[in-house]
Amino acid sequence: MPDVVTMDKIVSLARRRGFVFPSSEIYGGLGSVYDYGHYGVLLKENVKARWLEAMVRERDDIVALDSSVLLHPRVWEASGHVTGFTDPLVDCRHCKRRYRADQLAEAECGARPSKHPGETELCDLTEPRQFNLMFSTRIGPLEETGVDAYLRPETAQGIFVNFKNVAQIARRKPPFGIAQIGKAFRNEITPGNFIFRTLEFEQMEMEFFVPPAEAEEWFRYWVEERRSWYLRLGIRESHLRVRAHDPDELSHYSSATSDIEYLFPIGWSELEGIANRGAYDLGAHTEASGTKLEWVDSDSGDRYTPHVVEPAAGVNRSLLAFLVDAYDEEEVAGRERTVLRLHPQIAPVKVAVLPLIPRNEEIASRARVLYEELRRAVVAEYDDSGQIGRRYRRQDEIGTPYALTIDEQTLEDDTVTIRDRDSLAQERIPISGARAFVVDKLAEKWRTPKPD
Amino acid sequence: MPDVVTMDKIVSLARRRGFVFPSSEIYGGLGSVYDYGHYGVLLKENVKARWLEAMVRERDDIVALDSSVLLHPRVWEASGHVTGFTDPLVDCRHCKRRYRADQLAEAECGARPSKHPGETELCDLTEPRQFNLMFSTRIGPLEETGVDAYLRPETAQGIFVNFKNVAQIARRKPPFGIAQIGKAFRNEITPGNFIFRTLEFEQMEMEFFVPPAEAEEWFRYWVEERRSWYLRLGIRESHLRVRAHDPDELSHYSSATSDIEYLFPIGWSELEGIANRGAYDLGAHTEASGTKLEWVDSDSGDRYTPHVVEPAAGVNRSLLAFLVDAYDEEEVAGRERTVLRLHPQIAPVKVAVLPLIPRNEEIASRARVLYEELRRAVVAEYDDSGQIGRRYRRQDEIGTPYALTIDEQTLEDDTVTIRDRDSLAQERIPISGARAFVVDKLAEKWRTPKPD
Repeated sequence: MPDVVTMDKIVSLARRRGFVFPSSEIYGGLGSVYDYGHYGVLLKENVKARWLEAMVRERDDIVALDSSVLLHPRVWEASGHVTGFTDPLVDCRHCKRRYRADQLAEAECGARPSKHPGETELCDLTEPRQFNLMFSTRIGPLEETGVDAYLRPETAQGIFVNFKNVAQIARRKPPFGIAQIGKAFRNEITPGNFIFRTLEFEQMEMEFFVPPAEAEEWFRYWVEERRSWYLRLGIRESHLRVRAHDPDELSHYSSATSDIEYLFPIGWSELEGIANRGAYDLGAHTEASGTKLEWVDSDSGDRYTPHVVEPAAGVNRSLLAFLVDAYDEEEVAGRERTVLRLHPQIAPVKVAVLPLIPRNEEIASRARVLYEELRRAVVAEYDDSGQIGRRYRRQDEIGTPYALTIDEQTLEDDTVTIRDRDSLAQERIPISGARAFVVDKLAEKWRTPKPD
Repeated sequence: MPDVVTMDKIVSLARRRGFVFPSSEIYGGLGSVYDYGHYGVLLKENVKARWLEAMVRERDDIVALDSSVLLHPRVWEASGHVTGFTDPLVDCRHCKRRYRADQLAEAECGARPSKHPGETELCDLTEPRQFNLMFSTRIGPLEETGVDAYLRPETAQGIFVNFKNVAQIARRKPPFGIAQIGKAFRNEITPGNFIFRTLEFEQMEMEFFVPPAEAEEWFRYWVEERRSWYLRLGIRESHLRVRAHDPDELSHYSSATSDIEYLFPIGWSELEGIANRGAYDLGAHTEASGTKLEWVDSDSGDRYTPHVVEPAAGVNRSLLAFLVDAYDEEEVAGRERTVLRLHPQIAPVKVAVLPLIPRNEEIASRARVLYEELRRAVVAEYDDSGQIGRRYRRQDEIGTPYALTIDEQTLEDDTVTIRDRDSLAQERIPISGARAFVVDKLAEKWRTPKPD
């Protein structure tokens, strides 16, 4: 990562260019909840589309699912979330704030006088207590007749309880997977690292059901496959590492977990977890529901509970990693520029069309025609507002790989200038071949690694 | 609509083919909540993609937004939802069930003896009471220190509170719009019409901000534009109508609303509402937040609060309309078949590749090669399980427009059979041109109206 990246710069760029806004800002905001603006939506949709491509569209062994946020409350009893999905919290008797007992090093006690940064002993902490992280609500219009329910804290359980439905209809036998993208909610105390950890977030989870004897092999396969996905989308290899959990770190359901970690500005942190969940989940729901969630081989008559290997990624956290990894500042001809070197497959806009002199109707008209042609092939943007230098900077900051400029020479010789976001190289090409040229250039750029 | 369609048949097909499952089924289900299986996800994604294309990608005057489900509670006070978003409910003293006072005609009192269907007077109803439709929850780990919050009952308010952020960054002046697709939640008593009305659902809402004098004109424009969208995606014109709300039906915020209604099996019902919301929302949030949500013209210095025209559609309800409109049964050569005549642009799978004799390795191998080629262009499916007749029926029931069959003749003359879902016409074409042929056929089919 270039030394220039800080979380503050990412937050500032994301806000300035309309990627991410704090939620409910006009009412003073809601802590750790965010809204995504136009470019944020496009970037997020691209991240999700690339995941679905890699996990479902380009494979024959994984099907898609979209289960509900509200589930029967017994799902969370059986899964262990009602009793076990908790954080140990402590209260500071001085500042009245609440902290995670396992993250006190990061806590900033409001009672600590800023002039004496060393005096952390002012925080007089209570003993840790366990608090459940699920948001609860009630289905039904009246307190006395309603049903308690939770907002799902993960999408995975919606997959497990549908195992039998999907397995029957998908006519697949293990190994096969079920993939889901969807929102999850966690009532967490967060240290405020922008969209790294938020109260609501989108998960991309896939549960891969395998014969028990193959679980370890598939676990290793998915760690490598998921790591490779980030690399293919341009994340620098030196910013990515795989860390196996120590036995005492493992969740109650897991026999092995490896995190793919990214070098965020806050340090190496989890980007995605791959867990070998064994038969825990299908077993727990079989016991609680009385429905046998097992595999019956119609040829041999063998029956067994498949083991599960789960790669669980976060959409928002991935988006943050892509932003951080793409962020760069450099001096060009004595001027600073900020540029997002996003992989073209996730860049919100692929090409911009800029009339050099928008007042010149002929130039504007040629630019519109080119824009209309390009947008049928790729996501394009037409920008005629402000000086050309400002327009380039705007496109650099949203990560647009190419810009095409129409100028007076275009009217003479039917050529346009194509500018490369990364190298800043400009070349003139015939306007008639611009669309094909851009499509080829984009394909070429996504095979070329980012400068390290 | 063919007379054959009933809601039961749609529910049954949706379940049998893995479009839609009842949520938490192994735990006895959760009323009015549903999960989407593989083909349901593909169909739903296609519906959303077509909406985004029409509303954002193919236009220059609308940008995208994705705001949070959890918003600052004051948003819902200002919008009027805390006090006004209620249903009048009555209790039956006999059967203890609760009904909407305005929908008693549809109520089925459990106390009514089934042998005497006429004796509805057994239901002894309480006076109606108003119940708020928002799900509430609490942010923060403890009851005493948490903040009350609601799950949004509509996505629109997340757009209004972001008006200033987006307007500044998008560098657009009215008329311009902000479009959003996202989940919303309503704690409703539903009459159980499958996915027509559910506790959680996805909305596709667009708020179009216009100079006040242009509001009526834009209102008419959007009614026609949205109606046209359904027609373009194959909904029969005779199953669609526009119904203007009577003055006494209008919401508190609306000066005019028209519903686009579809002829569902439950009768003509709202598919999408287009409302002229005036300056109500921006005005209410300006007053409550102290942040001026107005438009300032940088040239003339004029400032005004834009009026809002809102086309608000439901993803799930649209999906139901597309399924109902596509559903058909017919007798072919003495056998019944069920077919979904889905528009190719929303069909989950565009083409299936079927080896006639899967055991024949040469046939299977040729089929795999063709499949791998086709899937790079369109969503394709390879199916080698069961008799060819069963495989055709399966593809018919999920609405796959074309099926390509590889047989022994393929090995001799390099041709394959292409079968048309609707006409059942089969023709032999060279395998080398199959990909281009399929792509052309799909384009042709989506210009041809469905048989009425």
